[in-house]
Amino acid sequence: MTDMQNPKGTKDINVEEKIQANRIIKIITEVFEKYGFNPLQTTTLEKYETLAAKYAGGSEILKETFKLRDQGKRNLGLRYDLSVPLARYIAMNPNLKIPFKRYEIGQVFRDGPIKTGRYREFTQLDADTVGSSNMLADAELLAMTSEVFSRLNLKFIIRLNNRKILDSILEYYDIPKEKREIMILSIDKLDKIEVSGVKKELTEKGFKKVDNLLNLIFTNDLNDVKKVIKNKEGIDELNQVIKYCKLLNVKNLKVDISLARGLAYYTGTIFEVYLRNSEIKSSVAAGGRYDKMIGSFIGRDVPAVGISFGIDVVKDALKQNKEKSVAEFYLIPINTLEKSLMILTKLRQNNLKCDIDLNDKGISKNLEYASKYEIPYVVLIGNNELKQNKVKLRDMKTGKEKLFTVNELILKFKKF
Amino acid sequence: MTDMQNPKGTKDINVEEKIQANRIIKIITEVFEKYGFNPLQTTTLEKYETLAAKYAGGSEILKETFKLRDQGKRNLGLRYDLSVPLARYIAMNPNLKIPFKRYEIGQVFRDGPIKTGRYREFTQLDADTVGSSNMLADAELLAMTSEVFSRLNLKFIIRLNNRKILDSILEYYDIPKEKREIMILSIDKLDKIEVSGVKKELTEKGFKKVDNLLNLIFTNDLNDVKKVIKNKEGIDELNQVIKYCKLLNVKNLKVDISLARGLAYYTGTIFEVYLRNSEIKSSVAAGGRYDKMIGSFIGRDVPAVGISFGIDVVKDALKQNKEKSVAEFYLIPINTLEKSLMILTKLRQNNLKCDIDLNDKGISKNLEYASKYEIPYVVLIGNNELKQNKVKLRDMKTGKEKLFTVNELILKFKKF
Repeated sequence: MTDMQNPKGTKDINVEEKIQANRIIKIITEVFEKYGFNPLQTTTLEKYETLAAKYAGGSEILKETFKLRDQGKRNLGLRYDLSVPLARYIAMNPNLKIPFKRYEIGQVFRDGPIKTGRYREFTQLDADTVGSSNMLADAELLAMTSEVFSRLNLKFIIRLNNRKILDSILEYYDIPKEKREIMILSIDKLDKIEVSGVKKELTEKGFKKVDNLLNLIFTNDLNDVKKVIKNKEGIDELNQVIKYCKLLNVKNLKVDISLARGLAYYTGTIFEVYLRNSEIKSSVAAGGRYDKMIGSFIGRDVPAVGISFGIDVVKDALKQNKEKSVAEFYLIPINTLEKSLMILTKLRQNNLKCDIDLNDKGISKNLEYASKYEIPYVVLIGNNELKQNKVKLRDMKTGKEKLFTVNELILKFKKF
Repeated sequence: MTDMQNPKGTKDINVEEKIQANRIIKIITEVFEKYGFNPLQTTTLEKYETLAAKYAGGSEILKETFKLRDQGKRNLGLRYDLSVPLARYIAMNPNLKIPFKRYEIGQVFRDGPIKTGRYREFTQLDADTVGSSNMLADAELLAMTSEVFSRLNLKFIIRLNNRKILDSILEYYDIPKEKREIMILSIDKLDKIEVSGVKKELTEKGFKKVDNLLNLIFTNDLNDVKKVIKNKEGIDELNQVIKYCKLLNVKNLKVDISLARGLAYYTGTIFEVYLRNSEIKSSVAAGGRYDKMIGSFIGRDVPAVGISFGIDVVKDALKQNKEKSVAEFYLIPINTLEKSLMILTKLRQNNLKCDIDLNDKGISKNLEYASKYEIPYVVLIGNNELKQNKVKLRDMKTGKEKLFTVNELILKFKKF
């Protein structure tokens, strides 16, 4: 016998987690479609050279890319995000009408070190608007975000910034272009290592006299910033996004000049969504504008803005409401199999989610089974009840039992 | 610039195909849940030794398995079906209450030769009942199948057989056990190569005097079969499935003694679903009972029965109804952006699926965009209309335009 385990760093999504995940995915995709985003499904496998292209995910992520070969010895890789496949899809389909608004749900893979909550295979859910540089596109993503978390009944806050503002500040303090990325990586850690930690890290990296710079960023006053920076494009864009967000009814938006986002490819708007009053401290959704990435990838200019939702963290935030089964009713025939199957068929025809005893387990084992799967109602079908044209409904929460005709049951529970 | 193509033998699912696929998946999973099947999501990556285990997919499929390694030099593979991961999941979770009824949708991979309609990465949708040897479990799968294709408005036929019947026939004609699998592989080709072809192939394989055997099978008369075979278990099981199917309202069931199904692991009920009056000649769903596979895999007895739906072939069968976008409305602001965004927000709050001009394209280019994506309605929002508190709705099919207040629009189109 072989060692029956899933691969290290991966995790099956069990039934109760998957019911929860499906509920979240349904809400998110309903909102996406309401905003005119269409579904797309790119391949999980990519040519390795696509994943390794100059403007793709970068060298760090490439170290974590699973490599493989097909029969023809072609070098392939498992995708590490949904953005590179999108760029490749845009490149392959030059006749797509833009703006192209698409969403995708899919598995992505990163062969990285294993930490709590980080898996080598996980699900991403992305929405991107490709081919518009209008700040309205950015605001639409934030409106969707606001609606998604409101519908999930989660208290959230959207931190919003624009990369150009950070760039202008660094420019004002004479930080050379080639050092800005390194600096931004440290500034982005404010949440984790506090101001003193950021300062220490920057000093270690060889940056000098960073006090004023860090003060300006961390006091988070847009007016102060406006006074000093030369290039005001970032501030203008940010204000435009905020204006559109108000018109689109976006809730809980908070400008945060210290927000940097690690990825190098962002060029404008950036945002991260956090939960309030929650154990989940990492962001639950994040994204931004990346006007160069797709364009450089395929040889023509294509502005784009996108958002990515973390299904797993949202699922963890909602864990109180888990269901163990989708079934609403569990039928127990008591020497009445044929009649019970006819009743089962009728209940299902009326869209009630029903399961039935398959293994002739006897009443008490059957009740235990229904209870283990937390199925809310059991329908006991015995000959005594059938003589009265009725069945016995047991509410598994209260233990109360009551007789109903099948039609009464359907009327009571059918959803319209 | 890199060569931007997807890997050989793989295919992106574009927007219109994915809208169609999602519609099919929604119907199938709704039906599955109504029958008490719960969602599960196993990993795409498996340990190679799991995929190569003695009772897994077999040596032929292993030749087509994508191999890879993680950072720790562990041998992994991409799954080639959803059955082996299910067996592995059952093995890892010995405390699962059985019967365990689960469904799973996921990508599977086969690095095989490339033919029309065969891809190296494709989507499977499976439902399995693990831990019940009751023929009612088999009948439930057929009832789901019947309901799924009825709801898709496809004309279908379910071919039903039992492996034990074939076995008994081969036993009666003294075909030794070790040669039966080879023979069954030929019998299974009746659809493709006709009786004469099967006979030729069997002769080439060294089987002699197969005329009577083939006649008995291909005349498809259960009574004739019953007269000659000794072990009647298969016929009893088949009759039980048929009885339950009638009670569960299964449509278009047809017993077909020649149905064999290629896979070695089937032990009882087997079935395949075909479309009538369709260009699709391959099966659109298929499955059967495999009482030994999981059990031998994990070291204890676990009967199981399952079905697999081919999303891609069903999608091809339905291709006439394709939609190019999920959006129902496309808003064109004519120098009225702020008011238009407020109207957009109100329409979306009422769950109408709306898109809006992001690129200030002008009316005629906007109409062209809406027409290209086949969005059914365009809402033109100009200052003249707004003065009357109205907007102009254009039906893109007829070209007719009419003025409405926003509330009238919502009343006209809102779904409840």
